[in-house]
Amino acid sequence: MTDPAGPPTRVADLTTPALLVDAAVLEGNLTMMAAVRPGAALRPHVKAHKCSELARHQRAVGHAGFTCATLREMEVMARAGLGDDLLLANEVVDARRLSPLVAAGHRISVAVDSEATVEAAAAAGVPEVLVDVNVGLPRCGCDPADAARIADLARRRGLVVRGVMGYEGHAVGIEDRVERQLQVEAAMAVLAEASVEVGGEVISAGGTGSYDLNGVATEIQAGSYALMDTAYSKLGLGFGAALSVLSTVVSVNRAGWAVADCGLKALGMDHGNPSLSSPWAEGLVWFCSDEHITFSPPDGRPLPEVGTRVELLPAHVDPTVAYHEWLHIVDADHASVLESWPVDMRGW
Amino acid sequence: MTDPAGPPTRVADLTTPALLVDAAVLEGNLTMMAAVRPGAALRPHVKAHKCSELARHQRAVGHAGFTCATLREMEVMARAGLGDDLLLANEVVDARRLSPLVAAGHRISVAVDSEATVEAAAAAGVPEVLVDVNVGLPRCGCDPADAARIADLARRRGLVVRGVMGYEGHAVGIEDRVERQLQVEAAMAVLAEASVEVGGEVISAGGTGSYDLNGVATEIQAGSYALMDTAYSKLGLGFGAALSVLSTVVSVNRAGWAVADCGLKALGMDHGNPSLSSPWAEGLVWFCSDEHITFSPPDGRPLPEVGTRVELLPAHVDPTVAYHEWLHIVDADHASVLESWPVDMRGW
Repeated sequence: MTDPAGPPTRVADLTTPALLVDAAVLEGNLTMMAAVRPGAALRPHVKAHKCSELARHQRAVGHAGFTCATLREMEVMARAGLGDDLLLANEVVDARRLSPLVAAGHRISVAVDSEATVEAAAAAGVPEVLVDVNVGLPRCGCDPADAARIADLARRRGLVVRGVMGYEGHAVGIEDRVERQLQVEAAMAVLAEASVEVGGEVISAGGTGSYDLNGVATEIQAGSYALMDTAYSKLGLGFGAALSVLSTVVSVNRAGWAVADCGLKALGMDHGNPSLSSPWAEGLVWFCSDEHITFSPPDGRPLPEVGTRVELLPAHVDPTVAYHEWLHIVDADHASVLESWPVDMRGW
Repeated sequence: MTDPAGPPTRVADLTTPALLVDAAVLEGNLTMMAAVRPGAALRPHVKAHKCSELARHQRAVGHAGFTCATLREMEVMARAGLGDDLLLANEVVDARRLSPLVAAGHRISVAVDSEATVEAAAAAGVPEVLVDVNVGLPRCGCDPADAARIADLARRRGLVVRGVMGYEGHAVGIEDRVERQLQVEAAMAVLAEASVEVGGEVISAGGTGSYDLNGVATEIQAGSYALMDTAYSKLGLGFGAALSVLSTVVSVNRAGWAVADCGLKALGMDHGNPSLSSPWAEGLVWFCSDEHITFSPPDGRPLPEVGTRVELLPAHVDPTVAYHEWLHIVDADHASVLESWPVDMRGW
């Protein structure tokens, strides 16, 4: 039902809920990261924004290689001409959808952590792999002591082992910087040792929370830094909150609350409620329903009128963006839509 | 990137994560509800499944009127030929997208609870409204004492006031049936009084949790009953868990956990983690990440192999379905895909 003429050019005319991206804040985030992690020292993770046009802006500041979480992200990135060096940083047991990408000349690598996933890569003709090593987060990655064996398996199946990968996801969100650094270093000590065993040039790791703490990784897989969310903002990393969800107040109750049209289908909720943005920033979010958020204004402020636009800052960027069809890039006043970029990597 | 030939016909060939709907359980849920709330006594809420083909099955068991939460749901339902009596049960401050539906001959009604929303309905040429009354949930709906005034406003603007609406959302999820009934009755006493003030035939209220407790509503707006989720299953309502999310184990760690490819972008998380389904039902879900769920098997059971398919039961159906493109209708063994229905009402 999308208007074939494209989204409107005034923020006031957008159907809500709608994702807004502050152009200057986004640009600042991309520039700041590229200064600290230039070129191949960052392999931006597209899962956080699922938008090939945003990835194109990441490439424009120097990052040619990208990290993906799903086969569809790999497919869309390749089709968008961003296939210079695509890493599927998750294990898959059926990699056949990567075969056409390899055949088309894109550089495709996948993470492997078991015989089955090595076999899947080989069967699909994916030429290169990273050995995914568990560095403390109870998720994917082989036991560090098993990394050399996985690498050998891969080489025997004719795969090039580019190196290792190991995500310190248990550490990147720790609010205290010193404690975060200690945990990152402990995890990376494990990965560095595995790297020696496995061989190869690449040590791929990290995220937004460790982008300037991880001295071992040759490339950081950060994604959230571009748009940010309230969970990462608590860490004081220097990246600005570029993303908000625009909503419209549809009901006001004089008993002391207002209701806007941004709910559970417009927000990733695993990190909790969103926060109200300026000028309602000190207001209280009561709860979210499927299509609604109930909130009260800051102390002493009157209730908004029906029709008032309210921006919300999501607690977790990745599952928020995945609900939406567009990122609307807006000016500093959040009055004009400069461009609208499709969120074209949703689904699997 | 959807295969133009459509999804495969074997569950084993589905790309994961994928939504499965057990055909017999769905049919049982629709039949049981239609027996208790036949015909117009139920106005199924499509927000729970966002699938016009599922709505068609609800109409086939006798329900011709539907409840929608968004303008897009209204548009898609009308386009699908299901526009006999569509109620937008949320307030909107811009209803102009409903004008073409009215012009095309569909019966369109909207909820109003303020002068602004009455004005929006009138400006769009929407002919009929329900006065939305707050019956205890701090969300939309006017103060009950204000209902007659809103109805008068609407009539002065030339709108037909079909009656009242009032959602007892604070009551429908109460696990204790006696307490739930008391709370539903208290809310409906408020709505019944407002109905007398407002006039009209319709008293629209309720949900899956009150479908057989609400003796005041002339029509119940239940949606979750068709597919169900673990939150509603706790209430022992008699509806079966028709919906599950199929996932694939992609990594196994001998330290005691497995990882499957179903995460925060495949699950509404506001009601918490999903539950493992048979044969892993007594296993423990550790946590969900963007594309992963980490879990351990029931005591004494070995870890699954990489490649094993695992079904998860979501905690909240509505925001889960909203992430997916398809509902795959499967046989009792969950081996064959009987049909695949597009989730065609996503977005706004």
